[in-house]
Amino acid sequence: MSRLIEVTELALRDAHQSLLATRMAMEDMVPVCEDLDNAGYWSLECWGGATYDACIRFLNEDPWERLRKFRKLLPKSRLQMLLRGQNLLGYRHYEDEVVERFVDKSAENGMDVFRVFDALNDLRNLQTSIKAVRKTGKHAQGTICYTTSPVHTIPAFVEMAQKLKDMGCDSICIKDMAGLLKPQPAYDLVKGIKEKCGKDTLVHVHAHATTGVTLVSLVKAIEAGCDIVDTAVSSLSLGPGHNPTESLIELLEGTPYHTRLDMERILRVKRHFTTIRPRYREFLSDIVGVETEIFKSQIPGGMISNMESQLKGQGAGDRLQEVLLEVPNVRQDAGFPPLVTPSSQIVGSQAVFNILMGKYKVLTGEFADLMLGYYGSTLGEKNPDVLKRAAEHAKKPVITSRPADLLKPEWEHLRESANALEGANGTDEDVLTFAMFPQVAPKFFKARADGPKNLGKDPAKKVAASEAKSPAAGGAKPLEGSVSYVITLNGKEHQVSVAPGK
Amino acid sequence: MSRLIEVTELALRDAHQSLLATRMAMEDMVPVCEDLDNAGYWSLECWGGATYDACIRFLNEDPWERLRKFRKLLPKSRLQMLLRGQNLLGYRHYEDEVVERFVDKSAENGMDVFRVFDALNDLRNLQTSIKAVRKTGKHAQGTICYTTSPVHTIPAFVEMAQKLKDMGCDSICIKDMAGLLKPQPAYDLVKGIKEKCGKDTLVHVHAHATTGVTLVSLVKAIEAGCDIVDTAVSSLSLGPGHNPTESLIELLEGTPYHTRLDMERILRVKRHFTTIRPRYREFLSDIVGVETEIFKSQIPGGMISNMESQLKGQGAGDRLQEVLLEVPNVRQDAGFPPLVTPSSQIVGSQAVFNILMGKYKVLTGEFADLMLGYYGSTLGEKNPDVLKRAAEHAKKPVITSRPADLLKPEWEHLRESANALEGANGTDEDVLTFAMFPQVAPKFFKARADGPKNLGKDPAKKVAASEAKSPAAGGAKPLEGSVSYVITLNGKEHQVSVAPGK
Repeated sequence: MSRLIEVTELALRDAHQSLLATRMAMEDMVPVCEDLDNAGYWSLECWGGATYDACIRFLNEDPWERLRKFRKLLPKSRLQMLLRGQNLLGYRHYEDEVVERFVDKSAENGMDVFRVFDALNDLRNLQTSIKAVRKTGKHAQGTICYTTSPVHTIPAFVEMAQKLKDMGCDSICIKDMAGLLKPQPAYDLVKGIKEKCGKDTLVHVHAHATTGVTLVSLVKAIEAGCDIVDTAVSSLSLGPGHNPTESLIELLEGTPYHTRLDMERILRVKRHFTTIRPRYREFLSDIVGVETEIFKSQIPGGMISNMESQLKGQGAGDRLQEVLLEVPNVRQDAGFPPLVTPSSQIVGSQAVFNILMGKYKVLTGEFADLMLGYYGSTLGEKNPDVLKRAAEHAKKPVITSRPADLLKPEWEHLRESANALEGANGTDEDVLTFAMFPQVAPKFFKARADGPKNLGKDPAKKVAASEAKSPAAGGAKPLEGSVSYVITLNGKEHQVSVAPGK
Repeated sequence: MSRLIEVTELALRDAHQSLLATRMAMEDMVPVCEDLDNAGYWSLECWGGATYDACIRFLNEDPWERLRKFRKLLPKSRLQMLLRGQNLLGYRHYEDEVVERFVDKSAENGMDVFRVFDALNDLRNLQTSIKAVRKTGKHAQGTICYTTSPVHTIPAFVEMAQKLKDMGCDSICIKDMAGLLKPQPAYDLVKGIKEKCGKDTLVHVHAHATTGVTLVSLVKAIEAGCDIVDTAVSSLSLGPGHNPTESLIELLEGTPYHTRLDMERILRVKRHFTTIRPRYREFLSDIVGVETEIFKSQIPGGMISNMESQLKGQGAGDRLQEVLLEVPNVRQDAGFPPLVTPSSQIVGSQAVFNILMGKYKVLTGEFADLMLGYYGSTLGEKNPDVLKRAAEHAKKPVITSRPADLLKPEWEHLRESANALEGANGTDEDVLTFAMFPQVAPKFFKARADGPKNLGKDPAKKVAASEAKSPAAGGAKPLEGSVSYVITLNGKEHQVSVAPGK
């Protein structure tokens, strides 16, 4: 009678991306792999754009080597990644051959489930990668980026799901990046997809916890027939992260649903990350608790802090409220794109410009491209006046074709450029690293031999290191008596009394 | 078609009791009263045992004066309090006249809704207070302390609800002290009460957020017909506290349920407490995020820290795990009392003794009293061997009557003792303060004229105060260069660098 609900664990990717700025070192994840591998998850998400970026930018770690290690340490599990469609893990559109090669290499190195999305929900930006995944025989998951607007109706999303199914997707993901998915729409959307695409269509729901409502939404999605939900182990959960795995398991007790997760193993994983998390305190998200004002502004937390620093850089830190009110206007003018990387940054920056310089007096290049169709199409109509401004500004025509159709073959050129770099190892994997992060890859290839860095700090070790670096000659000045200070950490003020060490 | 769900706001009592050790000063609550009064709540909880205790013990504030101030500042609202039945706000049983006088005075000073509970769910411990509330014409809410055990079944709780109704209660509260109420039991229990006691029986659900599941439980309770739920404004929510008010409002959108709350006013309250909360950082609960291990141990967070310090005091800090495993055994031997003040402390202390001294080698006086019926009756059978040990130890008989029936009239004696104290003002309110807190009241009466203290610290002001108190003559030693330290705040280690002020 009881229906099995499958679960994807996010601890190894999105959880630390959302809570610890993606800084977690591989060696801090290795100790939990055996428990995760045997806990009964449907899949373990462990790879994606930000983890790849952080590996080469901050951790001096080869992301492909990380993938191979996960493959080895998690032999029984489906490994899952998040793929930005035609953008791969980078920030521009790639020509189809690059996309195909990336998918092939990812599958070859051990990836099983490819969750493929496009920031604008433009299916043409998904077609090449989904086709490539299907060719490898791996699991292609087509993604609906969930957002709310007058044009984003349940029937419109259901229609999109049907199209993803027609493209050959093995499952459909409803991806709620900002915690905007409320219980009733969650229910209606899953129900709608099951009715339209057939009962056997696998539906997978991903939601962030930011607004405090989405654990209820996961339950409503389950009641509507959802097959798989995403959660994160409790010690890496909540705030801008996700709902806690243990809470999901517990709350299903007595209902007509159950998971097959092994609580004892998950509690061991929980305890490990309880210890590890404070080591990354300097990267900890400022957001704690819940934040429901996102429902009104539609602006995710990360985007607000970006806009704040942009404004402060212009000496206009006091105009944030005006900008927050402008964002929904800009989003409407652009045809209601979902706000997720990169559309969130593009819309946010243009809102800042509108407030500082006057409405559409200055356009960012990216915003003009968004208006003119170079990122793909949006569900809503664009404001014709702003469209005209964009065409004048960028001196480019409006396009209605698939953006990648404008691209010329680029693999050979990328390969030559990558292989010419000091430290490049001649593999296609290195070419892909260079293709996606051309600014960062050269430095990384050169330093790669030094091996991975762990930015997590063992509190005991750190004191010694800081003392050695202290500007006062010979290290820290000895302190006599005790001193009281107010210290601001992650935006919270703390009254501390400092006394000499014992 | 949509059904109105009423809400009780906990910010003024249980929220800061759970998160800030009940230390919030009245002056930090005054600024939000107008918004709370006009936001559309069913009631505002603002008084109870811990707030009364903290007022006289820590804040030098007359709790009756606090009640009168709330009455004045919240003219449109129902004021609500939590009353421990025959224990009132103290820690022993009081003779009936004291109970009646307390209820009368509370009503007279402005209380509207009395939520009355007994830690053992022994209805005989509620009868006098409920009768007294009814006599005043105020709202008498009978409470079921929710717990789980082999004897605590849905039908048993429903039976209890019917008895509360028969006693004349105006509404029934399901009180989940530790976040143990899962969604399905929440649904079944509310449904059961509505079916047994009639659709028009008002059902009110109170749940803590500790385990991360109870927002779903509130929704399930609502689906089953629950009329009123308890929440706390988001900036005073979650962890060992409660589910966020704003999230509840938002998640009902599109469902057949709605609140009548004014979000704009609630967001102003939220922003106020976002500013105020950090001032009480030294009292902040250690628990953040969720903790599902409570489901297994049944031990609320506050109780674990009590037991830890008890064990450390005995040089046995390493034996906590054994004690945690012993608690459910002791609870079973005692007939499965719910674990809430004072039964949680009594069971927890006995478990510590069992581990340190051998099983029931030493009995605490309170545990013997619990076994022998001096706190009331339990739903489960008691272990006869342990009962025998308790009778031998305490040299007292088992009682089966209502504990308060053994008490002699005490009001006149309490009045004489209270009025003889320096600073006592001769009112019945002062007699009640003395009755409930005989150790603390004398000191409070003496110091009362100095006026309330605010333990929340304005970070800017605090530095000056600390410097003046610094042991080094003339205040803090000036610091040259910068020094790095690891500083532990609320159990979290922080790496900080301290530099001279600019």
